[in-house]
Amino acid sequence: MLNQDSIVFLKQILNFWPHLTPDEQDFLLDTAQELQFSKHQIIHNGENHCAGVILIKKGTLRTSLLSEEGREITLFRLYEKDVCILSASCLLSNITFDVQVCAETDCDVVLIPSSVFSKLAQHNIYAENFSYKVATERFSDVMWAMQQILFMSFDKRLAIFLADEAARTETTSLRLTHEQIARYTGSAREVVSRMLKYFAEEGIVSLSRGEIKIIDKEKLRSLI
Amino acid sequence: MLNQDSIVFLKQILNFWPHLTPDEQDFLLDTAQELQFSKHQIIHNGENHCAGVILIKKGTLRTSLLSEEGREITLFRLYEKDVCILSASCLLSNITFDVQVCAETDCDVVLIPSSVFSKLAQHNIYAENFSYKVATERFSDVMWAMQQILFMSFDKRLAIFLADEAARTETTSLRLTHEQIARYTGSAREVVSRMLKYFAEEGIVSLSRGEIKIIDKEKLRSLI
Repeated sequence: MLNQDSIVFLKQILNFWPHLTPDEQDFLLDTAQELQFSKHQIIHNGENHCAGVILIKKGTLRTSLLSEEGREITLFRLYEKDVCILSASCLLSNITFDVQVCAETDCDVVLIPSSVFSKLAQHNIYAENFSYKVATERFSDVMWAMQQILFMSFDKRLAIFLADEAARTETTSLRLTHEQIARYTGSAREVVSRMLKYFAEEGIVSLSRGEIKIIDKEKLRSLI
Repeated sequence: MLNQDSIVFLKQILNFWPHLTPDEQDFLLDTAQELQFSKHQIIHNGENHCAGVILIKKGTLRTSLLSEEGREITLFRLYEKDVCILSASCLLSNITFDVQVCAETDCDVVLIPSSVFSKLAQHNIYAENFSYKVATERFSDVMWAMQQILFMSFDKRLAIFLADEAARTETTSLRLTHEQIARYTGSAREVVSRMLKYFAEEGIVSLSRGEIKIIDKEKLRSLI
């Protein structure tokens, strides 16, 4: 059973709530679960079961695409009040690809199991429409990522990444390895190291073991 | 007014038809248009108006992503009985990117103007759901394209492109410039030329001015 806080949260996020019958509402509240994910936990991947629709109460989820050789491209991140629908991709008849969803931070979520959401969507067009609408929103996110990856020169991408990361973590000292940055920006470690060296030479950042310090914000922004 | 053939076609493709009121059905039939597009005609792009939902009776539409510098990546093609929804992207509140749609062949289509579809979708959840469901299908197409582009080595991509092209045009002599292939495969002309030269050296294709002849289908397939 959900606590009162989670019930309020669920009704707020699932905007089709008023279109559910009382029975459907009870069914949803009886079967939804409060869960915690710990940082770096893998929540969904191709081989895994189709867990369900995840409503994020607190924390960040990261969705990425994995190649057969293990290369990883970040597609988008989801934050508080966002809905993760690709972890319930088996519900969406048109979704034929698979992605990995992992917890980027510790997370508090409400999970609606796939079997539950599937039943609702089959009988209630508003619930079905909610899932396709959220999926279409993610489509936009992915197209954005794709444009970044395909068309932007890497200095610009790296500058955007560092600026975003600094804003998100509210610090100018980023504790990230080059390997991690490569993973996040869809690049290779060597490329990241080379570009960071260039940024350092330009006086934009200073580099020390395991840390990248932004020392000229203006110059960084000018690249974006 | 649509001819009888197009009316039957429209009812078949728009599977929410039975959920429309008689007034909505009349409104749709009164405002839908038969159109012809000629080969290479640009039907939709970022700056253009949001034409509407296009139902393809005959022909092929190609959807691509354009960079600011004019680089072009093919995302997917749509064929007979497919629905082009991104040409009505203004209807989908969550679609915030823009793409180009162009006619790859001469096309016969039925167009439902955006203003018409918008009215239907606002009042009829089944119509709205149809548009998001089709958009989600395109999401799958784009993810497929993205995986091709990001993760596949280029020899594989080029082999797939040539085999597809040969199958589609039912010939082994492809009249395509290296520039065109680069555009279609999201690569650069130099890269295409280099790889084609390699394919020629391997006895997979033979090259002459403006023509690529596939001479060893089996070897081409072995790359895929």
